[in-house]
Amino acid sequence: MNRFFLPQASNSVTLRVELSNQPGTLARLTSAIGQHGANIGDIEIIQAEGPVLTRDVTVYSLGGNLEALMSTIKRLDGIRVVNVSDRTFLMHRGGKISVDSKVPIRSREQLSMSYTPGVARVCTAIHEHPEQAYELTSKGNMVAVVTDGTAVLGLGDIGPEAALPVMEGKAQLFKEFAGVNAFPICLDTTDTEAIIETVKRIAPGFGGINLEDISAPRCFEIEKRLKAELDIPVFHDDQHGTAVVTTAALINALRVVGKNPEDVKVIVMGVGAAGTAVGKMILDLGVTNLIGVDRNGALVRGRGDLSDDKQAFAMISNPHLEEGSIADVIRGADVFVGLSGPNLITVDDLKSMATDPIVFAMSNPDPEIAPELAFEHVAVMATGRSDYPNQINNVLCFPGIFKGALACRASDITEGMKLAAAHAIAQAISDDTLTAEFIIPSVFDPRVVENVAKAVEAAARAEGVARS
Amino acid sequence: MNRFFLPQASNSVTLRVELSNQPGTLARLTSAIGQHGANIGDIEIIQAEGPVLTRDVTVYSLGGNLEALMSTIKRLDGIRVVNVSDRTFLMHRGGKISVDSKVPIRSREQLSMSYTPGVARVCTAIHEHPEQAYELTSKGNMVAVVTDGTAVLGLGDIGPEAALPVMEGKAQLFKEFAGVNAFPICLDTTDTEAIIETVKRIAPGFGGINLEDISAPRCFEIEKRLKAELDIPVFHDDQHGTAVVTTAALINALRVVGKNPEDVKVIVMGVGAAGTAVGKMILDLGVTNLIGVDRNGALVRGRGDLSDDKQAFAMISNPHLEEGSIADVIRGADVFVGLSGPNLITVDDLKSMATDPIVFAMSNPDPEIAPELAFEHVAVMATGRSDYPNQINNVLCFPGIFKGALACRASDITEGMKLAAAHAIAQAISDDTLTAEFIIPSVFDPRVVENVAKAVEAAARAEGVARS
Repeated sequence: MNRFFLPQASNSVTLRVELSNQPGTLARLTSAIGQHGANIGDIEIIQAEGPVLTRDVTVYSLGGNLEALMSTIKRLDGIRVVNVSDRTFLMHRGGKISVDSKVPIRSREQLSMSYTPGVARVCTAIHEHPEQAYELTSKGNMVAVVTDGTAVLGLGDIGPEAALPVMEGKAQLFKEFAGVNAFPICLDTTDTEAIIETVKRIAPGFGGINLEDISAPRCFEIEKRLKAELDIPVFHDDQHGTAVVTTAALINALRVVGKNPEDVKVIVMGVGAAGTAVGKMILDLGVTNLIGVDRNGALVRGRGDLSDDKQAFAMISNPHLEEGSIADVIRGADVFVGLSGPNLITVDDLKSMATDPIVFAMSNPDPEIAPELAFEHVAVMATGRSDYPNQINNVLCFPGIFKGALACRASDITEGMKLAAAHAIAQAISDDTLTAEFIIPSVFDPRVVENVAKAVEAAARAEGVARS
Repeated sequence: MNRFFLPQASNSVTLRVELSNQPGTLARLTSAIGQHGANIGDIEIIQAEGPVLTRDVTVYSLGGNLEALMSTIKRLDGIRVVNVSDRTFLMHRGGKISVDSKVPIRSREQLSMSYTPGVARVCTAIHEHPEQAYELTSKGNMVAVVTDGTAVLGLGDIGPEAALPVMEGKAQLFKEFAGVNAFPICLDTTDTEAIIETVKRIAPGFGGINLEDISAPRCFEIEKRLKAELDIPVFHDDQHGTAVVTTAALINALRVVGKNPEDVKVIVMGVGAAGTAVGKMILDLGVTNLIGVDRNGALVRGRGDLSDDKQAFAMISNPHLEEGSIADVIRGADVFVGLSGPNLITVDDLKSMATDPIVFAMSNPDPEIAPELAFEHVAVMATGRSDYPNQINNVLCFPGIFKGALACRASDITEGMKLAAAHAIAQAISDDTLTAEFIIPSVFDPRVVENVAKAVEAAARAEGVARS
């Protein structure tokens, strides 16, 4: 257990126990839980009946030790476990989203307006003036969250059904954080053309498309084609959401150390879907000396083993044509951004960086270097985890960026809109509250979504993609 | 205006008017409205400020006369119209459905269970046990309402965007009447294979598919193929919903006149998607002497001009090989079911029917014969309209049939399940309340959905398509 340990609700159970109502009984239970290495959360009294007290005891971070704990408790005097609930599974039962009617239909009059015959006049109005679909249907505030289930979290290709809980979670966040309706579309195909075709065919009912957890390199072609062939915004969150929030974090980290984008050397390690998007956006921010690094070392134009995508990336980066391993190129760098894998850089690498190094070690759950090792050698550190300071979390971006795009019926989400979103996220932290441990606002800060949406809408108008 | 006239909320406006607060002012307004042939609904006081009273006056069934009324009111003393709202359009603003989170996400703990990292354990569970998608996601209670917009209400091929208000209305009814989540999928293709392919690709997130307003003959192939190639229920409501409710009405109409299905002669006029399904289901009910009629007369095997679908229908019907026009074959018939067009049968046709004729004139909005003409010549009459007794309305079927199918994770909706639904709808009217004017229960009778769902679930179990 490290000093940043926090109880993980995502890995907790609630035990319903009957305790004999005598002093010392609860203590026997709690010490048994403690002996099994688990933390205790809420303890609630559910019922007191004669000599028996029923309590719900929440136990955190039990890992695989639940069975061992259960058999210990079984041997305790005056304690009986009535039920064990996994809180995460409980909250998923029956799914996390619902489709609701915005108006009750309790009378024939309401029915005749919502449905036949009244609805026919509304259909006719849209048939005659198609843009009225934005006014008279849910299209204008409805996003499809589309996946093929090939790159779900760190789990990889688990298929469309198993991806559904993530897509439902995304739909929840769209609604709860931005008031945007979103609906999961989990596709039973991994073929690039089939995905493009399917999304185009279902597009009429949606005001925007959020692509999610589609593996590289197919995600590049799918997004590019859909952006070109649809007249509604298309946004691959794994690429661009990550890029926007990382860029926001970089803006603030540079504020902390007092450096300018133009002057810094940035290493981006891991040049997959997210790394490529992050790298490009950091270039958009004004950084010129940026080097991509994959498992074979620095991306440099002409390197023989590069894919087309990486070759293209090398062409716009690494202006000094540096070659070599991560240990070679990180030397003198001001910023390290990792989207690669666990424990790929060392304390010596950090020591070789420029003064006040900035390290974003975003490999999840295990960062490129353990924060415990890194802290004393860096000026600013961020990760993808919620149990360290400075979590780089896409939730800061996608609700607001779609809210802004939908508000003006944008036909696209442009580079300018993404950069505006990054600045808006960064600016949610004022100069006097900005510190090395606080470069990224809380996802629960309601100003973030509002500011992002406004900035994105303004950028859409400035760039000529707004349609209302 | 006929004796069955009812105010049409679906064609009403609300006028917000400022009236000088003096006796007689409101009367001048209401008499002006009356003079323009409109009915007055609610009159509400919105605000009283000094000498001015602001009221909302709802005006029904104004038809095209709104402008004329406005210019009349403009000339009235002490009356000023502040605003005119079309209530049907107002209730459609921003769409009629929303996608909501079933649990609030207000804390990091909730976020970590709904989304990362906790959701990963749920994804893994479904990956390892795919059937758990029914437990742990919204799939088990989620229906796709799929259309290509080619046969929307009586409006024809108006396209996917213009069809959306109907599909949203359908989704509302699924939720409000049966607690089933339903989501509109409006397809930007009318190609049979493309529609089949697209629905199969988006199917993982859904527990059932409700096809809607897809024109014949493509709807037949699309439904047949999807039923064969998907493991979830597929139901084309325009065909089978209509068939179920019409059969329910026929069961009760036969109860009223005391005849048995085996003994009656039935004419089905209009052998499109709905007519074919209605005809087949009436055969399933036990009727043997059933004759389909299209614009060229009775369908009889070997008739040279029949399409494949109609030829197939002729093979299972018209056992006495009757030929000729509707006027020829309706002679001696006990039941006429019309799904064709306005005013295609006459009083003389009715007079040529057997004693106690049953007439379902379901062409909408204008029936095969005007009820006013028919009433005195028939024992039981039904239409598709809400402003006559006995409205044959699909809303009686689809919420309950899907509720029942989803409750047992049915892999299909079988003929037996549909017939069970028809009987359940019919039985919602007890012997002592059944009359010629009351053969179909109200869509607002909550027992209907419950009874249909239970009967459908039982039939699914009996027929071996239930999976839980």
